[in-house]
Amino acid sequence: MNRAFATAVAVLVALGPERLPAQPPGEASPASSNVPGSLSPGIHRDGRVTFTLRAPDANALQVAGGDGLGKGPFPMTKGVDGIWSATIARPVPGFHYYWFVLDGVSVNDPGSETYFGYGRETSGIEIPGPGADFYEVKSVAHGEVREKWYFSRTTQQWRRALVYTPPRYSEDLRRRYPVLILQHGMGEDETGWTRQGKAQFILDNLIAAGRARPMIVVMDRGYASTPGVPPFALAADARLGDLQLAFGTFADVVVRDLIPTIDASYRTIGDHRHRAMAGLSMGGMQALFIASRHPDEFGYIASLSGPPLYGTDPDERLDTGFHGEFDPKTAYGGLFSDPAKFNQRIELLWLGAGTEEKELHARVRDLADALRRSGVRVVFFESPGTAHEWQTWRRDLFDLAQRLFP
Amino acid sequence: MNRAFATAVAVLVALGPERLPAQPPGEASPASSNVPGSLSPGIHRDGRVTFTLRAPDANALQVAGGDGLGKGPFPMTKGVDGIWSATIARPVPGFHYYWFVLDGVSVNDPGSETYFGYGRETSGIEIPGPGADFYEVKSVAHGEVREKWYFSRTTQQWRRALVYTPPRYSEDLRRRYPVLILQHGMGEDETGWTRQGKAQFILDNLIAAGRARPMIVVMDRGYASTPGVPPFALAADARLGDLQLAFGTFADVVVRDLIPTIDASYRTIGDHRHRAMAGLSMGGMQALFIASRHPDEFGYIASLSGPPLYGTDPDERLDTGFHGEFDPKTAYGGLFSDPAKFNQRIELLWLGAGTEEKELHARVRDLADALRRSGVRVVFFESPGTAHEWQTWRRDLFDLAQRLFP
Repeated sequence: MNRAFATAVAVLVALGPERLPAQPPGEASPASSNVPGSLSPGIHRDGRVTFTLRAPDANALQVAGGDGLGKGPFPMTKGVDGIWSATIARPVPGFHYYWFVLDGVSVNDPGSETYFGYGRETSGIEIPGPGADFYEVKSVAHGEVREKWYFSRTTQQWRRALVYTPPRYSEDLRRRYPVLILQHGMGEDETGWTRQGKAQFILDNLIAAGRARPMIVVMDRGYASTPGVPPFALAADARLGDLQLAFGTFADVVVRDLIPTIDASYRTIGDHRHRAMAGLSMGGMQALFIASRHPDEFGYIASLSGPPLYGTDPDERLDTGFHGEFDPKTAYGGLFSDPAKFNQRIELLWLGAGTEEKELHARVRDLADALRRSGVRVVFFESPGTAHEWQTWRRDLFDLAQRLFP
Repeated sequence: MNRAFATAVAVLVALGPERLPAQPPGEASPASSNVPGSLSPGIHRDGRVTFTLRAPDANALQVAGGDGLGKGPFPMTKGVDGIWSATIARPVPGFHYYWFVLDGVSVNDPGSETYFGYGRETSGIEIPGPGADFYEVKSVAHGEVREKWYFSRTTQQWRRALVYTPPRYSEDLRRRYPVLILQHGMGEDETGWTRQGKAQFILDNLIAAGRARPMIVVMDRGYASTPGVPPFALAADARLGDLQLAFGTFADVVVRDLIPTIDASYRTIGDHRHRAMAGLSMGGMQALFIASRHPDEFGYIASLSGPPLYGTDPDERLDTGFHGEFDPKTAYGGLFSDPAKFNQRIELLWLGAGTEEKELHARVRDLADALRRSGVRVVFFESPGTAHEWQTWRRDLFDLAQRLFP
C-alpha cells in the first residue's frame, strides 16, 4: 500500500467535518446559517423550524433563544439513535440567536455558525420570509469590509475597527465620502453589524438602487477602559456614574482616536455635517451620550432601540432610578436645551424601536413625543412585528441610510 | 421609579454576558483567546492549562483537542458549585483547537472564542511561550484584511475571499504588488489564516522589519462545486477521481474567477513571476494540484504539511492506494517531468512539515529528497517540535514569506 495515500486520507478525514446528525427533518431545508453540510436546523415549508442534536447519553435537552425566536426554552424529545428534536412555530424572518441547554448547560449547536452575542460565541439562525431580501447578497457592485487596526491613546491598546468602504471606492480615487459610525449592542462586538446585521449588503443594495449615498461605515468595539481601570462590565446594581465612566472612555476613543484615524486613513469628508453617530440598544445610548459630550462632531444622530436615559445624578442606581420625567433642559447633558440651535446644527435625529419591544418601544416613542413637544425635530421609526432583535435593526439601517447625507 | 431607567438596565443586563464561572484557577491568567471577562481557561505560570465548566447536572465531562494540545480526551473532575475542571501539561505555544465532551456530546467552551475548524465552529486557545512573538500585534504599520465578494462563473455563486493589503497600500497609489494565494486546511475556511494563523500580523511584522516584500495575500474558501454537483465532501472511501473533481473545480475558480478578480480589483503585478500558490494540509495538496494543471500561472509553489499524492488512476481508492513510488515523470500531472524546465520557470518550490507530524513529516521529506534526486530545486522546511497544527503553519509562513518575490 502506498503510505502517502493512506496518510493523505487519514489526515484529511481526521480533519474533516465530524459526521453531523444526517437527520433530514421531514421536507425541511437547511437554514442559510448552517455550517456547510449540516441539514439541521431545518426550515419547513410552512415556516416552522426543527432543531436536532445527537445526544444519546443526555438526560434533558432544550432549545432556547432570543426575543424573535419566542425565547423558549422549548423542550426537545429523544428519538431514534439518540437524536433529540424540537419543532417550533414560525419565527419572525431575520436573524435569531439560539442555543441548546444540555443537561443544564447552555451550549452551541454544532450545525450552525456562531455569532458574538451575550458576551460569548452564540449559535444563530437566519429565517427567510417576505420582506427579507433587502439584506441579501445580490448581483450588484459590492463594497469591502476592512479590518482596521489602530492604536488608542485613550486605552493605550491596539484596537480593531471594521470599516465598510462602498463600491467603487478604490476606483474613484478623487471622491471623498461621508462617514457613519455604527455601534453594536451590549454583549456583542464590532463584528455584529456585518455578521448578524448584514450591514454591508444593506448598503450595497441601497447604493446600487440609488437610494443611499455611498458612505463609509465604521464599526468599533463599544467597550473601552483606561489603563488600570477594570474592563467595562455592567453589574445589576450599577449606578449611573458607572455607565458614564464606561461610555465616557468610549466617547474619548471615538472622538480622540477613532475619528482622526478614519479621517487619516480613508477619503472621508471630515466635517461634522458628513459624520453620523448611530448604534443599537447600548450602542444607541452611546450614540446619544457621545453626541451630548461632543455636539460639534456629528451632524446626524441615531439611536436604534436605545433605552432612554435621563439621569443626572451619578450615584443613582440604574435599576431603581430617580423619580422624574424627561426634562429637555437637563437630559443628555443639555443636548436638547436649545431646540432651535439643535435643529439648526443637527441634520437628523433618528429614533427607532420594534413594535414588539413593548416597554422599550413605548419609552422610545415617549422620548420622541417629548422632543417634538419641546420643539426638537425628530424622526421616529417603527419596525412592525419585531422585538429587540436584529431584524428590527436591519430595517432601521435600511431606513436610516436613506436619510443620511442627502 | 423611572421606568426608562429600569428598562435600560433590564435590557442591558439581559443582553449582557451570562455570568461565567468566576473560578480563578489558582494563579492562572486568562488566555488571550478567552472572551472578554472570562477567567477560564487559565494558563499557569508553569505553562499548565486549566479548563473549567459549570455543569452541576452533568454525569461526565472531558476536554479534548487537536494535535498540539495532546489530543486527550482528558477527564474533568467535579468540584464545588458543580464546576468541573481539568489541568493539562504545558502545551506547545501557539493556537490549539479544543472542545468539551459533555455527557457524550462535543460542545464549545463558552469562555473562549470559536474558530472554523473540523467543519464547525470550534473553541480555540492561544498558548504563549518562547519564540511566539513573531505573530503578535506590534507597534508597526498594519495592513488591512478586506472581505471581497465576487461572482464565480465556475460555481455560478457569489463567493467571499479575504484579501490582505500591506501597510501603505492606500498611500502609495502608484505601487503594484505581488500576490500570494494562501489556502486553509480541510474542515477550515477562508477565515483560518487570519484568525487561527494571524497571517496579517506575521506579514505586518516581517514587512516592518524589511524581511518580506510588501505583498497582497488572498485567502479563499477551498471548496467549490459546479451547479448540480453535490458540495465538496471527502468520504472515507473516496477515490482519487473524487479528489480530482473537487480540486479541479476549485482550480477553475482560482484561475478563471479569483485571479482575474484580484488583478482587476487590486494593484497587482499580474504575471506568474509575481504570483505564489500556497496552502496548508489539504490546501498544500491543492497548491500542487492547481500548479500542475496551470503551470504557467505561478512562479512560486508551497505546500505546508500537504500530504503527497502521487496517483494517476482516478478509480484508485485513496485509503488503500496503489503500489508505487514517486515517479517524477507522472506524479502531479508531469509537473516535475522536465526538471531543468521546472527550475527555470518556478522561482521557488517550498515544502514544509512539523517534526511531530511523524508519518506525514517523513512522507514530505521523502518527496523533497526524491525531487532533489531527480534534479528539481526545492526548499524543505522543518518546524521543530510541532505537529499538524497552526504553530507549524505560522512558522511556515514566517519562513516562506521571506523567500517570496526576492
